Amino acid sequence: MTAQFTFSVDAADGPARRGVISTSKGDIATPAFMPVGTAGTVKAMLPEHVRATGADIVLGNTYHLMLRPGAERVAALGGLHRFMNWPHPILTDSGGFQVMSLSKLRKLTEDGVSFQSHIDGSRHMLTPERSIEIQCLLGADIQMQLDECPAIPIAEDDARESMLLSVRWAERSKRAFEEKSAPGQALFGIVQGANYETLRRESLDRLMEIGFPGYSIGGLAVGEGRGEMFRVLEFTCPHMPADRPRYLMGVGKPADIVGAVARGVDMFDCVAPTRSGRHGQAWTKSGPVNIKNAKYADDPEPLDPASPCPASRDYSKAYLHHLFRAGEYLGPMLLTWHNLQYYQDLMEGLRAAIAAGRLGEHIAAFKAATGETLV
Amino acid sequence: MTAQFTFSVDAADGPARRGVISTSKGDIATPAFMPVGTAGTVKAMLPEHVRATGADIVLGNTYHLMLRPGAERVAALGGLHRFMNWPHPILTDSGGFQVMSLSKLRKLTEDGVSFQSHIDGSRHMLTPERSIEIQCLLGADIQMQLDECPAIPIAEDDARESMLLSVRWAERSKRAFEEKSAPGQALFGIVQGANYETLRRESLDRLMEIGFPGYSIGGLAVGEGRGEMFRVLEFTCPHMPADRPRYLMGVGKPADIVGAVARGVDMFDCVAPTRSGRHGQAWTKSGPVNIKNAKYADDPEPLDPASPCPASRDYSKAYLHHLFRAGEYLGPMLLTWHNLQYYQDLMEGLRAAIAAGRLGEHIAAFKAATGETLV
Repeated sequence: MTAQFTFSVDAADGPARRGVISTSKGDIATPAFMPVGTAGTVKAMLPEHVRATGADIVLGNTYHLMLRPGAERVAALGGLHRFMNWPHPILTDSGGFQVMSLSKLRKLTEDGVSFQSHIDGSRHMLTPERSIEIQCLLGADIQMQLDECPAIPIAEDDARESMLLSVRWAERSKRAFEEKSAPGQALFGIVQGANYETLRRESLDRLMEIGFPGYSIGGLAVGEGRGEMFRVLEFTCPHMPADRPRYLMGVGKPADIVGAVARGVDMFDCVAPTRSGRHGQAWTKSGPVNIKNAKYADDPEPLDPASPCPASRDYSKAYLHHLFRAGEYLGPMLLTWHNLQYYQDLMEGLRAAIAAGRLGEHIAAFKAATGETLV
Repeated sequence: MTAQFTFSVDAADGPARRGVISTSKGDIATPAFMPVGTAGTVKAMLPEHVRATGADIVLGNTYHLMLRPGAERVAALGGLHRFMNWPHPILTDSGGFQVMSLSKLRKLTEDGVSFQSHIDGSRHMLTPERSIEIQCLLGADIQMQLDECPAIPIAEDDARESMLLSVRWAERSKRAFEEKSAPGQALFGIVQGANYETLRRESLDRLMEIGFPGYSIGGLAVGEGRGEMFRVLEFTCPHMPADRPRYLMGVGKPADIVGAVARGVDMFDCVAPTRSGRHGQAWTKSGPVNIKNAKYADDPEPLDPASPCPASRDYSKAYLHHLFRAGEYLGPMLLTWHNLQYYQDLMEGLRAAIAAGRLGEHIAAFKAATGETLV
């Protein structure tokens, strides 16, 4: 633990790297998966169980927290770490992505984006400066610049215009961060440019000129498909600075993560394990399980008898099936927990394989066990 | 732990007693509060946390479990203890009360009660024999006879007719239990008779003639009010055998329990702590808290900073308020946990006060702290 934000790589296997991010709130082993704690809670999970799965860091959503309970309120209560009883590192997004996907009557200008809350219709304005102010009020250890995240496909001219706006917002975000942030906190720039190689390169070059301690890859997992996403990573990652963490935002399913790690990504977040868990979908070493399926009604086996995770080990599939059929809280609680354990085990397996120089075999085994072909 | 069901009283203070029920699954310190695990789960709770609050036993509902997932299925999966990952004692009701309150098109005859499932409309018949068969399939350590539970007020003639039916069902239940049960399990008879002293006495006398290792008091907390309930306990408990546990079914709020313990009751169950917890209502040492109330939005204090229970100690009221406002799973999870801890602390306090011969002072302090007048 340190008051400085640092990143060190201690092993590599091809483009894949294993390392450690240090923050004032603790270390983060990379490649890292960050469970999503949208509104100040990883849904249906106790924070001590999130930690017990092996998670070093969770994500909070600026959009949700600014609207409810409000950033100033969280700050007055001692910051997001204390508020949600999570003393370990927290990353926040800028709020921009969710303004565009969740709010009403939004209007984008050079200054920022104005919008109406989806909760109560109240009017708000999110600028690069206000986003950083909110993230600092929350006390996030890793913060994101405000950016625009266009859908794919998009015409190249439009993609470039949007990317350049994000770069201008990156500069403004950095200035605001230098004013408001605390020691040990870090601001990441976000590489945009849709699926255009020249635009991704230009975005990255301009961000590196501004200078950030870490770089996010935004604008992916927006419908372009796994193959296209991997193609973008293949022409982007090799040009990213080797000594800074690379964060692929909003990704993904296990095969997405495995493939992106192999292409040099260090950090991930996704609602998949938590959202799927609430809806009865579990990942297991032998592939997906839809626990609501009638075939599990009499299945006495747990999801993973060898797991140290109580949710994976101590309850039969028949019981989990019953809980979902009966609409009981405990079903989403246990399946979320199981899925988060699965994801952290996935990351631990990748880190160990990179350190051992056997990532290729590890990925081959993953493909064989899960039936995934594109990894 | 023993293969015999036993009950011993080790201290008394007036009519109140402290004791221990032993079952093959473990001991139960009395006076005991049993959290309700309706459908094979204490709602929104992990079983290890139910246990950590101090609960020695939980209740399962025969009506719910027979309909979903089905008693034969639970038996095939190793019984209810294994199914719900609760290796400690379990008490089941007979199903009769919930047939009358939840099912459709029910018809009561001498044989039993036929009804339609509230879940899928399927037709079922619950007789004294089938109720016991189900409770034995579930593997309940303490089982209840099928009874009829009329509302109060009820005319004395009708109440007597109903009580006599329950007595005949008690006999049939006992015969079925002797055939189907396992060593260490116990069947309780249920005293009925509405709020008529002569009927309660007659019911008790007839049940004692049949002979049971424990006696329940049914047909209370059905709208008669706390004062009337206490009056029934006052003319019923003194005639109940001193060497058998007394179980007041479906009761109650903290003041109900304190008052009933003072009148000689040993066992309680109620959905109050779990249901209220899911709806944002907490009990605390200084009275009730409606956590959704706006006044808690900025309250940095936890519900009980001195509690060993994480739910009571590690989260501010402001955070709990936020969770309920945002509709997050964690709100009901934490408030249920807190309430169950409050109830178990209440029981522990009563047991200690009885042992120390200072129940009167203890109740006076309870009244002063909570503002309750009728205890």
